[in-house]
Parts: sequence; structure tokens; C-alpha cells
Amino acid sequence: MIRLQLQINLAYTVQEPGADFFFYIHAACTQHQQVPFENLTVSPDSAQWDIQLSHNVGQRCLRLRAQAGPLKLQYNATVEMEHHMADPASIPEVPVHQLPLDVLTYIYPSRYCQSDRLAYFAVQEFGNLPMGYVRAQAICQWVRQHVTFRSNTSSGTTAAIDTLVERVGVCRDFAHLMIALCRACNMPARFVTGTDYGADPALGPPDFHAYVEVYLGNRWYLFDPSGTAIPMGMMRLATGRDAADVAFSTIFGGVMSEPPRIQVLVDHNEERQWKWPEHTQLALSTA
Amino acid sequence: MIRLQLQINLAYTVQEPGADFFFYIHAACTQHQQVPFENLTVSPDSAQWDIQLSHNVGQRCLRLRAQAGPLKLQYNATVEMEHHMADPASIPEVPVHQLPLDVLTYIYPSRYCQSDRLAYFAVQEFGNLPMGYVRAQAICQWVRQHVTFRSNTSSGTTAAIDTLVERVGVCRDFAHLMIALCRACNMPARFVTGTDYGADPALGPPDFHAYVEVYLGNRWYLFDPSGTAIPMGMMRLATGRDAADVAFSTIFGGVMSEPPRIQVLVDHNEERQWKWPEHTQLALSTA
Amino acid sequence: MIRLQLQINLAYTVQEPGADFFFYIHAACTQHQQVPFENLTVSPDSAQWDIQLSHNVGQRCLRLRAQAGPLKLQYNATVEMEHHMADPASIPEVPVHQLPLDVLTYIYPSRYCQSDRLAYFAVQEFGNLPMGYVRAQAICQWVRQHVTFRSNTSSGTTAAIDTLVERVGVCRDFAHLMIALCRACNMPARFVTGTDYGADPALGPPDFHAYVEVYLGNRWYLFDPSGTAIPMGMMRLATGRDAADVAFSTIFGGVMSEPPRIQVLVDHNEERQWKWPEHTQLALSTA
Amino acid sequence: MIRLQLQINLAYTVQEPGADFFFYIHAACTQHQQVPFENLTVSPDSAQWDIQLSHNVGQRCLRLRAQAGPLKLQYNATVEMEHHMADPASIPEVPVHQLPLDVLTYIYPSRYCQSDRLAYFAVQEFGNLPMGYVRAQAICQWVRQHVTFRSNTSSGTTAAIDTLVERVGVCRDFAHLMIALCRACNMPARFVTGTDYGADPALGPPDFHAYVEVYLGNRWYLFDPSGTAIPMGMMRLATGRDAADVAFSTIFGGVMSEPPRIQVLVDHNEERQWKWPEHTQLALSTA
Repeated sequence: MIRLQLQINLAYTVQEPGADFFFYIHAACTQHQQVPFENLTVSPDSAQWDIQLSHNVGQRCLRLRAQAGPLKLQYNATVEMEHHMADPASIPEVPVHQLPLDVLTYIYPSRYCQSDRLAYFAVQEFGNLPMGYVRAQAICQWVRQHVTFRSNTSSGTTAAIDTLVERVGVCRDFAHLMIALCRACNMPARFVTGTDYGADPALGPPDFHAYVEVYLGNRWYLFDPSGTAIPMGMMRLATGRDAADVAFSTIFGGVMSEPPRIQVLVDHNEERQWKWPEHTQLALSTA
Repeated sequence: MIRLQLQINLAYTVQEPGADFFFYIHAACTQHQQVPFENLTVSPDSAQWDIQLSHNVGQRCLRLRAQAGPLKLQYNATVEMEHHMADPASIPEVPVHQLPLDVLTYIYPSRYCQSDRLAYFAVQEFGNLPMGYVRAQAICQWVRQHVTFRSNTSSGTTAAIDTLVERVGVCRDFAHLMIALCRACNMPARFVTGTDYGADPALGPPDFHAYVEVYLGNRWYLFDPSGTAIPMGMMRLATGRDAADVAFSTIFGGVMSEPPRIQVLVDHNEERQWKWPEHTQLALSTA
Repeated sequence: MIRLQLQINLAYTVQEPGADFFFYIHAACTQHQQVPFENLTVSPDSAQWDIQLSHNVGQRCLRLRAQAGPLKLQYNATVEMEHHMADPASIPEVPVHQLPLDVLTYIYPSRYCQSDRLAYFAVQEFGNLPMGYVRAQAICQWVRQHVTFRSNTSSGTTAAIDTLVERVGVCRDFAHLMIALCRACNMPARFVTGTDYGADPALGPPDFHAYVEVYLGNRWYLFDPSGTAIPMGMMRLATGRDAADVAFSTIFGGVMSEPPRIQVLVDHNEERQWKWPEHTQLALSTA
Repeated sequence: MIRLQLQINLAYTVQEPGADFFFYIHAACTQHQQVPFENLTVSPDSAQWDIQLSHNVGQRCLRLRAQAGPLKLQYNATVEMEHHMADPASIPEVPVHQLPLDVLTYIYPSRYCQSDRLAYFAVQEFGNLPMGYVRAQAICQWVRQHVTFRSNTSSGTTAAIDTLVERVGVCRDFAHLMIALCRACNMPARFVTGTDYGADPALGPPDFHAYVEVYLGNRWYLFDPSGTAIPMGMMRLATGRDAADVAFSTIFGGVMSEPPRIQVLVDHNEERQWKWPEHTQLALSTA
């Protein structure tokens, strides 16, 4: 088991006449990721908020309404992850006609993952590979090899097509391109937001992270196309079709933002079998 | 009440080694639209199919697997629609912070409705209008006035941005642009597929139709931006974020298609109060 | 006559192994714009440069090769402009079949002015207007009214289509959109770089400017769609199809740039009839 | 020497109130391509036309004004081509600072060749190759290998970026992508229209063709990225930045077009050393 101590600090200055926020900053509760403790503090007290649970995926949306002035949030949680692990070679693709209807959704194009335009390209590059986890992995590696990580090279409107053309971006862009290519190969794929762990400090302080899940062998397996974190230490906040669904914050109103401050500490304890996250050749799933 | 007799005929030639189909050709079952009778025949018998019900929106996905060779489907249904009607002036917008989480989804950009890029434009054109149903109606009229209906002017990759620029399209394009503009104004909007009724015969035989629902006054109200049909006679098949979600057919495999043949007859009966669909100034909802 | 004293200062730090520059910072020499005095100083002396004259449009390209290290340029010039002025109502459009071949070029789409996609829109908005200068003026005003000037809202890849959709930009974006719309109406239009004069100090210090010329009445008339300067004081550097042709600097190699510093002083002298630039209702041409 | 007998037949039905045409159907006259005989017939006689010579590139624009009704053109020419041939290994790239100003133009992005967006990709794929003709050849081969030729897969708005993403197109699309990639590598490249020769009859009857010239070793060398013709038999009509400049016909007005009918016959004569066009490993130039 991996056990993490998470702290997220967010700070805003809200302008008149106030603003509405939708946050995904709560650790998701899934079969493989438990949250034995958590605590949210919001100041000022006048901010009104509630938490809405998304049906059946265990993610929680924090809805908040704030008046003009400063706004601060602090979320603390203890998160325990028990990964499902499997041998990559043993994980098949699921034929389209066997996909559950709620998974089929993730085979269709979305705002930032225009898989419909990539059909030829995907067949050309990945059509002859053996089917299964290894094909998704080949797509992951292709993206990592062909796109350069560089801060501030993309914007809120940058989509997979742009990244394929311009070959540069941040973790969100890597994720969108991998998702689009998987869908173009008829593999359902979705966007995950979470926290990074083990990222190269040269890329900046700990941060929110964006990665990918692909539906294989009747389960959602985790991929990190940007290669900037240790997958076993990535903690799930929310999943959706792409960044349009599950930005960590969506804001309606005039707001000045400070950079989020995030801390992820590993509760390492050999006796209790609380391990260090480490790179592995095994396929991982926490969904 | 409006009572319709619906018949849909689809014909394909499937190539080796067979194909998978996902159809939305079953009339949706909602509080306001009932299906007292229906019947589906598929030939050849060797085609395997089942029907999956989408959680809580009453639409049904027909999943079908066919071997190489001819494939024919005939769907017959009796559909009864009891529209919710309301005075447009009485229907308010729902503030963002009061939107249910499953409705909030429809405020975000999607593949064909890139509302994120239309924020300035939407504020400029529609930001000063009184809020409520009438604002959605103003967007509907703007789209109808500024886009020209012309067959074969758009393709499967045409999105709202393209239609805004090129000002020409078919019903699907009108719907995408209206949806994108509504979302850019913070009004949840979604794509509906159904059948047209009352369309100008000059536009061709009866056909599948694409139109829009906007979430107003805690209900989904119906809009027909292309203006090609009589809304009261439009029969709902499925709803989604945009055409990526609810194409009447999504096909995996090599297939030759014939144009669908659709028949919609009105069961008019004054005694039983089965009425003719007609244009109305009232706001309509069947969701 | 308008007589200006121009000074342009540019400063760079060139990285290993040196860089190539192409500048358009020399005042153009046309029938209506003379340069009785000019002087260019480049430091260090090791930088190699020459000046190439563009055939028949009077603009001059400064080609410069610099080694790694600091690079500074100072250009001083006295520029005299004798505008051709005409009554807008008297200026007709030139029918396509009467356009000279070298003008016809400017009716075709270019990198940043994709007029081919705006045909419907242009006909819809401007097709019924009386033909002539006034129609170009109507396009100029449409752009000014529908696009908001805001610094740092566009990038080097932003084109007319993007500005039409996003409705925000800087002078270059206003120019590209106006050019694209004129071409879509079969009016040849081209991009001009120069210096602004009379710009609102709130928009920043004096700067390079981008504006438009439209071919009407067998002459290139000047338009300033961004409306940020006094057209009579705008001094021409170069013209081309769009910003791809005549950026004030095009750089090959790794370079750090400081913001250009520009000074434009009016040599006002009543006796000699050296006037102040002022807003006018007349049509202006300096080509 | 290659000697060709060329015949081009064009047929239109012009709608009220007439139309203007700009054609590039005359064989270009260059140092390496001579036109000892040619003849143009236009019917009806009422059509007004003249021919304009483009400065210094030897191409000729036919400007024609026709009234409503049928319009037919027949162009016959004898064309003699004496190719400059060189060993690919001996042809260097020209450093940017040594490019003539009128060649530099072809390094900038244009409507259909948005090289500005391909900088990273071009460096990634082609940045480490040895410089010279062989690098342009590597780009040519990359395009040929990664794009599939398929009729009717692109439209008048399809540009290099689209072809890079969608990986399918016709000769014009292959040309645009190769041009954009060359420019992104700082190699001037331009679009050539001409006639094909030796094309696989399975692709259809003889047709206009689009190919590429790259400026190398102070000369424009010819490349055929679509690989559908025998380069030595390709006859030049016109060159420009991309298809926006030199479509074989540009039409202003309502017109119905028949497919062009083109015939290219080789005047083979061993005695006079009139040879058959054949594939060669040598670099070819006719500019």
C-alpha cells in the first residue's frame, strides 16, 4: 500500500460582485483509493460551499460561492492507495461490441481530443501493433518521444491536434494527445487529474498533474505520457473526457489567482507495509 | 397530446469481416414522451443485437454485430408526446451555482461546441440581453438569421467555430453553433437527435433531425435553430453533448450505407385529443 | 506636407553561434513619402549588413548577420509625406477584370488572411452595401466595433479567422481581419507596417503599427482598423500580403530581444506648410 | 531534350450575368522550357481575353471575361524542356543570409503552408539530417510515406497542417505539406502547377499536377512528393507560394465546370535526341 499525506492550498482575490467556483481538489474515493482522513477549511466564513458526489466514479465536486475579497482554501487528507497490478502482456483490448455503454462514451471525440481527425494517422502508426496493453503503451511512448515538455507553450484552447502539429506542451497536452490517439484506435481513454509525485524539481514545485486511463481487460489502467512523475505515487482527484470536464478549478466571475501550493508526503512504514512509490514494469490501476 | 406513427428503415452492405453498429433509433422514453408500442426487425437473423438503456435519460442504444453481407433494420413505434408548455417570459436562467452537477456538464465545451473560444463574442452579442428563455431564443434566432441552410456544405469534422466563420451548414451545424453560444453565455445546452416533422419538402424527404435543449427554469427546453421543422412534432431519440455522443449510427468496420428512409405519420383524432403538431409561441419541453 | 523626425532603437543579445536578421525599419521611399535624410548605426562593428531594395514598392530590407553578444541598432530619418487625398464618395471599386496582375495577388488568401473561408460571411454582412471606398470603410468600422483591443491576447499564429471568432487582439489582428474581409469581397487589400502617431498613451509608448491598404480607384488607400493612431501621421515601412511578409524583424537564431524604442516627432512649421497630422474625413493614400 | 505536344480543353457554362476567369494554362517560358509553337482558341468569340506576363518567372496569366452561356477553351502547344541535371550529393543548401530577397519570400508561411507552426516538428524529424538536396529529398520521401493518396479527401480549404494530421490527400496536399516542412527547415520552397506525365492510369486520366520546387545550390530543384508522375515529363505552367497563387483557374462569378481534358504526347525521336521522360536519380531543374 502507498499512503500519502496531502495538503493543497489555494488563494484567490475575488472581484466584485463575487464569483462561483467548482473545484476538484478532494481525493477521489474508489475501490483502490481510500481517504481515511480529510479536512477542508475555507476562509472567510461567509463563503458558501457544498460538496457534490459524482455518480459512481467516486469523485467529489466542491461548489463554492464567494463574495469580493480574499479567498483561501486548505485541504488536508490522508490517502491510501492499493494498486491493482498486472502483467502488461496479459491484458487484452476489449472489442468494441463488448464495451459497456458508459465506457463507450470514452471512445468518442471530445473538445480537446479530436480523435475523429486522427483515424488515418493512428492506423498508420499503431494499426499493425499487437493489440492489448502493449499497444496503449506504444502510444504512450510515441507521445513521450515526439512531444517536448516545456512550460507556458500551450493555452486553454490547445487541443490534441495542436500538440500533434506543434510537438510541445505540458502534462495536460501530453494526456490529450495520448487520449485522442487511443480513441482513434478504438481504445476508450479518459483524462485524470491528480497530484504528481517524484517529478523532477527542475520542472517546478509539486503540482496538479494530468494523466490518462485506458480501458483494457475490463479495467481502467493508468498511463503517464508526460513521464514527469512516478505513476505509483499519483493520487487521483477526478476523471473525465478531457480537461474541459475536470479542471481542478472552474471559475465564473472575475478572480485573481495565486499559484496553488501542493504538498505530498509519503507515509513510509516498512512494518505496516506502507511503501515508497517506485517505477514499475507492471500495469497499474486504481479505478 | 401528439401521437405519431414512426417507421425507420435502414439498409447496409457490410464488408468482410463484419462490423459493429451502435444505433440510436429507438424513441426515447421520458416523462413527456411515451412509447406504447414498438417493434424492431433485423435481417439476417444471424445479426446479434441487444439494447442498452442509458441511465436516467430514457434513451436506448441498439448494439448490433453483423457479418459480411446485406443488413436491414426496420423499427416501428407509436409515440405519444405530452409537451410541457410555458410562457417564455416566465422562464428564468438558472444561476451557475444552482445548477445540478449532471447539468453543469453541459456548460463545458465539447468536440463540436468549442464554447471556450466564444466567450468574447457571446458577451458582445448577447451579454446585454435580459436573462432567461428569451436570451436563448435570441441566440436561436441569431443563428437562424446568420447561417444559411445548404446540403453537403459540412462534414463530420465541422464544428461550431467553422459554422460561425463559414455561415453555412445543415441542422447539425445550426445546433452545434447554438449550443456553443449558449454555453459561452453560461446556459447549459445539449444536442438532441430525433425526427423532423413538417419540414419543407424542398429540403428532401423526412429525415433524422438535430436540435437543441437549453436548461432554463430547472427544465430542458427545446429549440430548433435550423427552423426546418415544427418543434411540436419533433420526436426525441437521444441527447448528448453534441453529435459525437448521439449520432443515429456509429459504425466500426467497412460498410456501404443507403440513405435512411423515415416515415412519421400523425395520428390525428379530435375526439381523443390527439392533435396536429403546430407552431407555437410557447416554450416546449419533453425532457 | 507632414514632416516627421523618426528614431528607432533596437537592442538584442545574440546567442551562440550568432544569428541572421531581416529588418524592415527603413522608411519606405514612395512617390508620396520621401526620406531626405537618414542614418543607420549598428554596433558592434563586426556585424555585417547590407540593404536590399524591393522591386517597385520602395521598401528596403536590412539584412544583418551578428555574432554572439550584444547588438544595437539606431535608425534616424527625416520623412516627408505628401498625402494624396480624395473624397471617399468619389472613389469606386476596381472590377476584378481590370485589376493589374500584381494587384490581383492581393485578392487571394494568405497565411493570416484566410479570405477563402469568409466568402459567405462577407457577402452576408457587406454584399449589399454600395460599392466603393465606402464599402471598405464599412468593413473597417465593422472590425473596429466588433474586435476589442487588448495587449497580449494573440500570438504569432493568430490569424483572421481566430480574431473573427475570439473578437480580441492587437493592431496586427485588426489589420488581418480587415484584409481578409476585403479580399472576400473581391477588394485587393494588403498589410502595411509603419509607426503609429497619436496613439492613446494608455496603450503604451510609441510603437510599430500595423494597418491596411485597399486598392480602390486604381490607388492604394490607407485604413487603420484598430483606430489607435492618427492615419495622417502613420509612416510607412513596408507592405506585404500579411504579417508573414513584412514583420519589422525576422530572426534566424537564438536571440533575446528588448522592446523596441521608437520616437516620432512632428516638424511643425506653419511658414513652410509643415502641418500637424490630424484626423480627416478624406481618403488618404501614400502609395 | 524532352519534347511534348500538349492539349488542354476546358468547358464551362457561365451563368448570368457573366464571369471573370484567370487561367494559368499556358506553358511557362523559362531558360529550360521553351514553347516553339502554341495556339489558343476561345469560343464564343464574344469572350474578351488578354494574356499578362508575370515579371521574371515566365508564366502567363490568361484573363478572360465571358457572358452567360457555354464557354470553351482549347490550348495547344509544343513544349521543349532541357533539364538542368545535377548529382544530388553535390547540391548544398543556401544559408539564409545568402538568399536573394525575392527567394526569401518563399521561406515565409503562406495560406496553405503554415510553416510557422511546424518548427518543432521539422527540427525533430529533419534537424539532424545532413544539409543539402538530400535533406529536401528526405522531406519529400517522408511526405510520400506518411500521406496516402486518395481522391476527394481534401477541399479548397485543406492546408498543410490538416494533411499532417489527417494523412490523406491529393497531389496539391502532398505539395503543400512538403513546402511547409521545407520552409520550417529554412529551405525556400514553392508550389508549381503543371501537367502530370506517366501517372498510373488507375488514378484517372491525365490531369493538371501540383509539385514542388526547393531552392538549393542557387537554383530551384524539382520534387514530386505525391510520386504520381515521372518528374522529367512534368511540364510547368506556373509557380507561386501555394495553390492560392496559381490555381489553373480562378473564377469570379457563377459557373458550372466540366472536368478539364488534358493530353500530353511525347515527341520521341532518337535522331534528334528527343527522349522519353524517365525516372532518374539525378536532381532536376527547369526554372
